[in-house]
Amino acid sequence: MITSTGNGKVKQVINLMKKAKERRESGLFIAEGLRICREIPRERIDSVYVSQTFLKEEGNRRLAEQLSAYEVSDGVFKAMSDTQTPQGILAVVRQYTYKVEDLLKNGEPPLLMILETLQDPGNLGTIIRAGEGAGVTGILMNDSCADIYSPKVIRSTMGSVYRMPFAIVPDLKEALLQLKKKGVSLYAAHLSGQNNYEAEDYRKSTGFLIGNEGNGLTEETASLADAYIKIPMKGHVESLNAAVAASVLMFEAARQRRN
Amino acid sequence: MITSTGNGKVKQVINLMKKAKERRESGLFIAEGLRICREIPRERIDSVYVSQTFLKEEGNRRLAEQLSAYEVSDGVFKAMSDTQTPQGILAVVRQYTYKVEDLLKNGEPPLLMILETLQDPGNLGTIIRAGEGAGVTGILMNDSCADIYSPKVIRSTMGSVYRMPFAIVPDLKEALLQLKKKGVSLYAAHLSGQNNYEAEDYRKSTGFLIGNEGNGLTEETASLADAYIKIPMKGHVESLNAAVAASVLMFEAARQRRN
Repeated sequence: MITSTGNGKVKQVINLMKKAKERRESGLFIAEGLRICREIPRERIDSVYVSQTFLKEEGNRRLAEQLSAYEVSDGVFKAMSDTQTPQGILAVVRQYTYKVEDLLKNGEPPLLMILETLQDPGNLGTIIRAGEGAGVTGILMNDSCADIYSPKVIRSTMGSVYRMPFAIVPDLKEALLQLKKKGVSLYAAHLSGQNNYEAEDYRKSTGFLIGNEGNGLTEETASLADAYIKIPMKGHVESLNAAVAASVLMFEAARQRRN
Repeated sequence: MITSTGNGKVKQVINLMKKAKERRESGLFIAEGLRICREIPRERIDSVYVSQTFLKEEGNRRLAEQLSAYEVSDGVFKAMSDTQTPQGILAVVRQYTYKVEDLLKNGEPPLLMILETLQDPGNLGTIIRAGEGAGVTGILMNDSCADIYSPKVIRSTMGSVYRMPFAIVPDLKEALLQLKKKGVSLYAAHLSGQNNYEAEDYRKSTGFLIGNEGNGLTEETASLADAYIKIPMKGHVESLNAAVAASVLMFEAARQRRN
């Protein structure tokens, strides 16, 4: 059992938890919590850590054995954990490397979420989780979005991050031109939108452009949209939370594709 | 200018920020930030506090004057604030007291969100904000929901809390029976849902039941629903974030009511 936070493995976990640079350079990230650890594809797992208390339950002991987990003292686990009340299990996981083409490989017409400088980790995680539920086939992000491998994003995807292809690109314009060449129609939720969002046909290849929480889409990105759409608002509401707006659009596309 | 956190008014603000009991007993709450302070109906304002730095801008000075704001030092403001980087303005506001009947007073058929033991302040605030945008006419909560008057909920409503009628009841069953007697159809998003959510008609009087983030609706509450509906999910997603599920339903109702 590891009982010191000075242990090299423990130090690595703490660094991966806290530092985006560490994650980038090592190609690893941390998934913490029972459910999200259970769902990791085995071939992605680098190593697993469990606390003493975690091992007191029979089922947990079996899981720890299957995953060849390292046992650490409760105090050390608390130091490694990113949560207030740790569940006592976390895994070091190998990152994914998708290209833009990988977002188009699904059999059906693509349904893509395109995120420009989305800053809130909770919003990003929520969009990935809701996106899987709505049948989104891939996520495209510019590299100014919140770090998808931060512990908070990983947790809020509830495991969807393992199953949803996503590409992170330095040049969003180039990637969008590539998608348009492949026949993907791009829709931007925009103040100057003419049509209500439900008036468009999302059964064909579709990409929704979602901008930064405070500033929306840049003009350059918005100008690449095939159509501006609006989510009509009652009352004095000017805009929706980014994850809510994204969800309304994704589930409208899902609704159309069912009917 | 107030320069001490020992000042009685400052102490009251700090207590109102931090303690639900203090808010309940005084019937007051705190709204922090420029935009949310601008939108408070004047007759609701008890008092306003601004920081020294806030007053350096001409427009801010005029607003502070209109609101008869108390000036406090930046250090004192920081101590009063609930945010990492305070904008330098907050208001003490009088609470609302709606009854269940008040949720039905709008001219059109009611569109109600009914929240049972919703725990996350961000989810609650997001539902109120998105709800105003979708044309929700009122929110009904049991008294085990997150405190609607907590600073985080108030902030995430972006001002919608001033315009959205909401009733908090100790006995949700009694309130639901009252709504049903008034002709409101209740829909529960539920694992055993038969129909897809878009198959129901929400143009008539409608209430959506949304349960606790971890445990969903209690059986007692679910049993009062007129119909169980489902949001069909692809992939391995079992459930949606509560604010996302609520938004998908509210905006489907809005879509139907437009068409």
